[in-house]
Amino acid sequence: MPLVRIDALGADPGRLDALSRAVHEALVETLGIPDDDRFHILTGHDGAHGTLRYGDYLGIHRDEGIVYVVITMRSGRTPGQKQAMYRRIAELAHAYAGTDPRNVFVTVTENEPIDWSLGHGIAQYVTPPA
Amino acid sequence: MPLVRIDALGADPGRLDALSRAVHEALVETLGIPDDDRFHILTGHDGAHGTLRYGDYLGIHRDEGIVYVVITMRSGRTPGQKQAMYRRIAELAHAYAGTDPRNVFVTVTENEPIDWSLGHGIAQYVTPPA
Amino acid sequence: MPLVRIDALGADPGRLDALSRAVHEALVETLGIPDDDRFHILTGHDGAHGTLRYGDYLGIHRDEGIVYVVITMRSGRTPGQKQAMYRRIAELAHAYAGTDPRNVFVTVTENEPIDWSLGHGIAQYVTPPA
Repeated sequence: MPLVRIDALGADPGRLDALSRAVHEALVETLGIPDDDRFHILTGHDGAHGTLRYGDYLGIHRDEGIVYVVITMRSGRTPGQKQAMYRRIAELAHAYAGTDPRNVFVTVTENEPIDWSLGHGIAQYVTPPA
Repeated sequence: MPLVRIDALGADPGRLDALSRAVHEALVETLGIPDDDRFHILTGHDGAHGTLRYGDYLGIHRDEGIVYVVITMRSGRTPGQKQAMYRRIAELAHAYAGTDPRNVFVTVTENEPIDWSLGHGIAQYVTPPA
Repeated sequence: MPLVRIDALGADPGRLDALSRAVHEALVETLGIPDDDRFHILTGHDGAHGTLRYGDYLGIHRDEGIVYVVITMRSGRTPGQKQAMYRRIAELAHAYAGTDPRNVFVTVTENEPIDWSLGHGIAQYVTPPA
């Protein structure tokens, strides 16, 4: 169920794929989602049709290695789970894509079970159907 | 008011347009939004600058026909309205774009009236202005 | 902390940059965020790999100058702050990018301090770490 958007600079499909694997494995490990619960939108920005902007906010020096990870999921994860998730995303983004952890930016937006239809026009998390 | 993002694979403007019409008509029919209340961001991912990832989560076999529909709207719709909306999006995506209903993935994020400015720098849903 | 997505038609890097500066300065002025707290994802849609749809909802005539500004930030801003923010975004988009204020569409989604990791795998807004 988490829907993940990953935006990075450049147009290297291999790097986007590595980032996608890093985020997915981190979610499997720390949130306990199934391995086939992977829904990602990956975008590389090459400057011709868009780009990213970033600053050194909080004293963290970011550069063109910046990666934005935006996760939409149901509410209910604990603060500890989210913190473990952030830590593991940063670790695996480094391991798989060579991304420096200072460049890994993650934000989470939560919604409710009724807010998901994962195919067939059905709200699968709500039973019985209203 | 709903703001809709539709992400699909490929770069067929006709298909994106058909998906956009499908989602819009479904929202008009099931949420009762006006016909001119259409605000869509459509993106086709061709692999060069991004792509989509998906799994068979919940036993639903998805393939390269996958379509992600992300809807941001004010809170207040009932579960029944959302379920009707999912059903109609899937039906019309099939009718207009040939998309198999198993490939239609929808998620909703809600906010409040103060969270919208639809032009002229005004928060139109809040009256009188604070 | 606000994460901002800006989507416009065309593929003019200068225009996207001007819109980005407009939104950022408006947030600095009206929300009081630091100048280096700038995290933007900018996309120009040229029709080949996506586009935008828009209607004249609420009697506002929009055209190909449409700009979608989507802001994710922590909850806590007052209605008055948000209204000042919308006003200033519209003013500066006009001043910097020549965008007519009727074409400036903004929506806000809020989350909580635990929902942000701005680098290093840490949830910086939560102390001490859980």
